[in-house]
Parts: sequence; C-alpha cells; structure tokens
Amino acid sequence: MSVIDRLTDEFARLPGIGSKTALRLVHHLMKGSTEDTRRLSRALVDVAEKIRPCAVCGNFSEHERCEICTNPRRDGTTLCVVEEAYEVGAIERTGQYRGLFHVLGGRLSPLDGVGPDELNVAGLLRRIAGSEGEIQEVIVATNASVEGEATSVYLEQEIRPLGPRVTRLARGIPVGSDLEYVDGTTIAQALAGRREM
Amino acid sequence: MSVIDRLTDEFARLPGIGSKTALRLVHHLMKGSTEDTRRLSRALVDVAEKIRPCAVCGNFSEHERCEICTNPRRDGTTLCVVEEAYEVGAIERTGQYRGLFHVLGGRLSPLDGVGPDELNVAGLLRRIAGSEGEIQEVIVATNASVEGEATSVYLEQEIRPLGPRVTRLARGIPVGSDLEYVDGTTIAQALAGRREM
Repeated sequence: MSVIDRLTDEFARLPGIGSKTALRLVHHLMKGSTEDTRRLSRALVDVAEKIRPCAVCGNFSEHERCEICTNPRRDGTTLCVVEEAYEVGAIERTGQYRGLFHVLGGRLSPLDGVGPDELNVAGLLRRIAGSEGEIQEVIVATNASVEGEATSVYLEQEIRPLGPRVTRLARGIPVGSDLEYVDGTTIAQALAGRREM
Repeated sequence: MSVIDRLTDEFARLPGIGSKTALRLVHHLMKGSTEDTRRLSRALVDVAEKIRPCAVCGNFSEHERCEICTNPRRDGTTLCVVEEAYEVGAIERTGQYRGLFHVLGGRLSPLDGVGPDELNVAGLLRRIAGSEGEIQEVIVATNASVEGEATSVYLEQEIRPLGPRVTRLARGIPVGSDLEYVDGTTIAQALAGRREM
C-alpha cells in the first residue's frame, strides 16, 4: 500500500471524514509545504504521548491531575458530573460554573453491556464520601436522552445517601428557538419547570 | 498553548475543517487508543518525507519517476495534460485511459500573476519535442472554467507546431442529469458536439 493510500485510509477512519474528503486532505498536504504536514504529525504525537485521564476527575489532562482539579480558585463544594470529557469544555465555555467536574466515561446502557462497573461511578462515590462533607452539591449533567436520564436517576439514588444535594440541569426551551418548532416533551418540561418572573 | 489546542489548530488549518470539527476530531483521537493517533502521525511523516513530484510528469510519487511513467504497459504515444496532480486520479479511476500524463501545476491566470513560466509548460514542450515523434496525441484535460479554457487554447498553439494531434475532453451533458437543470452554455456545446447514434 502506498504512503498516499495509507494516509488517506487513516484520515478516513476519523468521524465525519469519508474517503473523498480524506483524499482531498492528503492532496492539500502534498501540495503544501512538508513542514505543515510535519507539524500536524508532531501535534498528533504530542497528544498521543501527553494526554491521559486526570487521576481525580477523568478529564483529559497533560498532567496527573487536570488544570481544573489543581486550580485552588475553583469551588470544591460543587461537583458537576458529565458523561464524556469533551462535555467539560461545553460547560466551561459558559463561564458560569466555578466548581469541579467528574467524568463518567459514558452512560448506563444495559443493551450495550454498559453498567455502573463500566463507568467511573465507584470513583465518583468514593470521591464524594472521601470529601467528608466538603462536596455539598452534585449537579448531574448527563445528556437529556433516555439513557442519560436513566443514568441521572441511578446516580441520584447512589449519591443522596452520602449527603450532598443532587441537582440536574433545567429542561426547557432552548434560547433563541420558536415555540412552534420545539417538541412537545420539551414544552411540557418547560411548563412544569416554569419560574416566577 | 496546550497540546490539545495545538492539535485542534493544526486540524482547523485543513480545508473544509472548522474549529468545531477540529475539536471533535481531537476528542475522538483522545478517546481512542494512542496507537491510532500514532499511526496517523506516522502516515503523515511518511507522506512529508517520501512524496515528491515525478521528475518526468510532475505527478505525486514515492520515487524519482512515478508508477505511471515507469509502467512499460502504458501507451507512450498519448499524453494527457492536467492542471493538478490530484486530477490524475480522477482520470485513472475511469479505467479508460492507458496513456501517460503531464501535470501543469495550475492554469494560466494573468490576474494572479500565473503565466506559462509559473507552470510546467516548458517541461511539457521539451518532453514532446524530445519524444521524437513518439507522442502522437496530446489530450489537453484542463478544467472547463474560463481559465482552464484559456490555458488549453494557449497549449494548443504551442504544441501543434511540434507535431502531435491536440485534442480536448468532450463538452456535453453530464451522465445522469436532467436537461432542465443543465446550464445553457453546456447544452449549446452538447448540441455543437452532437454525434451520430
């Protein structure tokens, strides 16, 4: 297999990149300077070598403990539980959250053989129990899918006996959307969760 | 800058990949095995180190002369001239062409400062003259754009005095399309080029 075909195949393994796009990328790189291609290659090796899960929260990290866990200005009384590490960024970008995170590494999905043991649940419960009351609130920010909801219900049952409040993200109308195009279940939840103006 | 941000930036430089897609690719790689990431990195280095233009035709090649130029079963009497090396693949995939290629490396575009000296035109003319009559037909397969057409007219004037027939790809209705949606210029050219059934 030629080096061109091999690189095309590697690109085509990436999500959202088909064989035509992969070929276009390869041609773009071959037309450009070899230094650009080498830089991309080095950036990949760096990520492969340096990124690992944070020993505390499971977020991607260049160090044993991630930047959020080691930041003394973060609020250690609140823990936000997300399914995947890339969801940490979605919450961080709001600039509205100053607490810590915990990454489950997925959601409960019995049909796919994913139970609590396949997720970072034991670590979460140990972390809460080990904080000896410092963690006062756990925000369960699993996705608003059926499996995400099931996971949040399970976590709530496990966490509440340990002491902290257990909350979840509000369900409601997404900002900027027309009521006409919002599905009925969302409107029903927005009605149930209505607030004083 | 973190290694994650650097890889995201490198991906986002590629054509058709915005910053969100780049981030998704990085997360995909971080979630997967580091071996996958290393393999992509190695494939990139291989391309950067091994791919160069074929000394004869200008196509991408792992060797001094490309696989097409060194293949004794190719028909050396016919030369197909394309603008870019990646267009060689488009013609090869038809399986209908057994001749050789010549890559110009672009098209004439005076407004962008691209004249014959910026393209591989002198090499083409030397190659035809040096073949001492072996090259009997030159198919000018530049794109059907204004600049591609201008390039083909220029090449025709330069090549014809050297002896070979100069042809170009037929213009006409693309296979599978409805007449209703084909532009008028294409239909006009298809009419002018109509053939006995």
